[in-house]
Amino acid sequence: MKRSLAHELGAHIGERVRLQGWLHHQRQLAQVGFVLLRDRSGIAQIVLVDPDERRRVAGLTAESVIEVVGEVVSSEQAPVGVELFNPEITVVSEADEPPPLELRRPVLNAQLPTLLDHAAIALRHPPRQAIGQIASASAAGFRSTLDALGFREIFTPKVVASATESGANVFPIDWFGSEAYLAQSPQFYKQVMVGVFERVYEVAPVFRAEPHDTARHLAEYVSLDAEIGFITDHRDVMSVLEAVLAGMLATIAETVGAAVELLGLTLPSVPAPIPVVDFTEAQQMIEAATGRPTLGEPDLAPADERWLGEWASAEHDSEFVFVTGYPMAKRPFYTQPCPEDPSASNSFDLLFRGLELVTGGQRLHRRKDYLAALAGQDVATYDGYLEAFGHGMPPHGGFAIGLERWVARLTGAANVREVTLFPRDLHRLTP
Amino acid sequence: MKRSLAHELGAHIGERVRLQGWLHHQRQLAQVGFVLLRDRSGIAQIVLVDPDERRRVAGLTAESVIEVVGEVVSSEQAPVGVELFNPEITVVSEADEPPPLELRRPVLNAQLPTLLDHAAIALRHPPRQAIGQIASASAAGFRSTLDALGFREIFTPKVVASATESGANVFPIDWFGSEAYLAQSPQFYKQVMVGVFERVYEVAPVFRAEPHDTARHLAEYVSLDAEIGFITDHRDVMSVLEAVLAGMLATIAETVGAAVELLGLTLPSVPAPIPVVDFTEAQQMIEAATGRPTLGEPDLAPADERWLGEWASAEHDSEFVFVTGYPMAKRPFYTQPCPEDPSASNSFDLLFRGLELVTGGQRLHRRKDYLAALAGQDVATYDGYLEAFGHGMPPHGGFAIGLERWVARLTGAANVREVTLFPRDLHRLTP
Repeated sequence: MKRSLAHELGAHIGERVRLQGWLHHQRQLAQVGFVLLRDRSGIAQIVLVDPDERRRVAGLTAESVIEVVGEVVSSEQAPVGVELFNPEITVVSEADEPPPLELRRPVLNAQLPTLLDHAAIALRHPPRQAIGQIASASAAGFRSTLDALGFREIFTPKVVASATESGANVFPIDWFGSEAYLAQSPQFYKQVMVGVFERVYEVAPVFRAEPHDTARHLAEYVSLDAEIGFITDHRDVMSVLEAVLAGMLATIAETVGAAVELLGLTLPSVPAPIPVVDFTEAQQMIEAATGRPTLGEPDLAPADERWLGEWASAEHDSEFVFVTGYPMAKRPFYTQPCPEDPSASNSFDLLFRGLELVTGGQRLHRRKDYLAALAGQDVATYDGYLEAFGHGMPPHGGFAIGLERWVARLTGAANVREVTLFPRDLHRLTP
Repeated sequence: MKRSLAHELGAHIGERVRLQGWLHHQRQLAQVGFVLLRDRSGIAQIVLVDPDERRRVAGLTAESVIEVVGEVVSSEQAPVGVELFNPEITVVSEADEPPPLELRRPVLNAQLPTLLDHAAIALRHPPRQAIGQIASASAAGFRSTLDALGFREIFTPKVVASATESGANVFPIDWFGSEAYLAQSPQFYKQVMVGVFERVYEVAPVFRAEPHDTARHLAEYVSLDAEIGFITDHRDVMSVLEAVLAGMLATIAETVGAAVELLGLTLPSVPAPIPVVDFTEAQQMIEAATGRPTLGEPDLAPADERWLGEWASAEHDSEFVFVTGYPMAKRPFYTQPCPEDPSASNSFDLLFRGLELVTGGQRLHRRKDYLAALAGQDVATYDGYLEAFGHGMPPHGGFAIGLERWVARLTGAANVREVTLFPRDLHRLTP
């Protein structure tokens, strides 16, 4: 008999089916027992009446892998509208001991470090499964949107000979006796590849040796990177980002709607266009409204970002807001200055619900501009990168979305570690 | 005027269009000049007649980024059936100097190290672009096939606290002062995630500190990993692999057919099923046919794999062949032994055109079997991994395809470095 999945049972009422999955929970009442079987699609309820069978099943440990053959019966009391009657339950793989976490509870009763230590079990909790589904659907939506726009996926090295964006915050590696580093981003490679494919993206890990111990920083995370050639300026990049965000949300809604429902989420809509505020104007508004001195600061503080999130929501009914024109002083060397004001940049941050989610902008595209921007540095370090710009590079720009931060913001997780399968930070290297 | 792409021109005969791209090549004859513009879609030919304009364009350096507005004219002599007449050519971004490689030639006239040193330019060569397109289409086909089979994409850490598959061949990292390692594979994580999603895949870099200096080894490569729960044995894994290979080839044919044509490739067909030969029987055949002593060896030598490739082609008209039943002695500790003969394993290699392309098999799924397999080792190292098996894991198995090796074999490249954007090996960390 072919295996059925829990979520398909409604289509098999009156038939005998075979289920496989985990013994999620069981309740033995006076006259009847209920077993919940969890598979990758959801949870099925099985009704036990025979006293011997109830006694046998009562002895099984939660999380044991079981197989159930039974008859699908429509039931108004059952959580999903159907139940399995007259079951034959066999054990496929028995659990050695009860799980360290009570997966049957709606909310796991444990602190975050405990959940992370027991990731192998905690990730089986249906809400955590749902978060994982939203993460993979987000990546799928990122790719499919860009595929449709003529982008090409690339795979670039994560081990590099020299620090890329800045000298600090890199992890050193012993590479066959030579010193190398983990790549902080695919920035240089994706720009070089604009010279090849014009429009490229990469979904891959990046590594930041920043000693931040906050709820929003990981030392390893998945970066959704895109880079686009033949743009006019950063606004073309922002348009692509708008399409990408809309595509990610559409893919979530279409492919993992049950996860969205389980988590009780309301997916944001992406206004077309997303409201834009200039960096200096944003500072003026914040200072005028809050009295907090912000003008002249080279970056926005977290409180400023929160204020702008509320402002965008109130004024533009948008959970997203672009901030453009950040001072060049705080942007990386490859950033294109603003033509009207060279102290400002053709760059942007995208705030989502009051938190920076995406950074992007237009890049320099002429070799001489790079040489000027790198004046005083050892330019030989950048040879393989700068070669591209000496041989015809179009105006281009791009952005990077932190996958875990996106999922955290979308699901309302207080800590980015809650939405990462196996987080890596200052203190954590296992499991 | 909206930008058109070179490959769309046939649909615009008689219209004025705007192209953007690279000055691929130009030929100035006595009465007429031809300019080839290369964009992400292909190459367009532009016809120049005006003497002043011809003189100006003749002064442009190859690889400069140009924009051309001109009239599309049907032409039987033109390589793609159309040409652009009456062009206005403007320079978007001039190249500083001629490129180090003559991209106009069908084959680049340089040794591999030179090509790799100048990757930023070499990758612009149309056959190299085509190879990159085949790589990304392969990954896309891997994902879409597995998505359709109910698999979930996962993202697992590339930095781990301890060596995974074996103690040797790992790259040490200084992780905030602690010693850590680059992950050799997502093996442990994908198995743990079978307990969560049943069917998972990952497309991500892996790192092998093997001091091999061969044409088929890289120290960093992209691994296409899949893991499947609720299998009967390794044969279920082989069936999924067959579907995946067929899906990868179908995606290549459907989405990058022009790349296949440019490279003059004949894509293999995937027989259903792929022929299977038992390890010991394979050795018997090879020894009988060649006189080379192979029986009793714990693994197949490259010459044995080549022989089997020829055998499968001759006897089964197949470019693929599975070898099953490898001795346990040469398989990792998590391998499920063969029930009939515990010295053999429920594992397989897939040979493609006489070279090992995929390794896979059934894994142990009970904690006590792991403890027995790891007897004598420090089991604490495996805590986060073994926890999954103590709490109900179904019979499962999986496989890993090396993306670069697949593309090399498919395109007939002699060296895997020819099909890798920015290869990393014993000697190469740049560009």
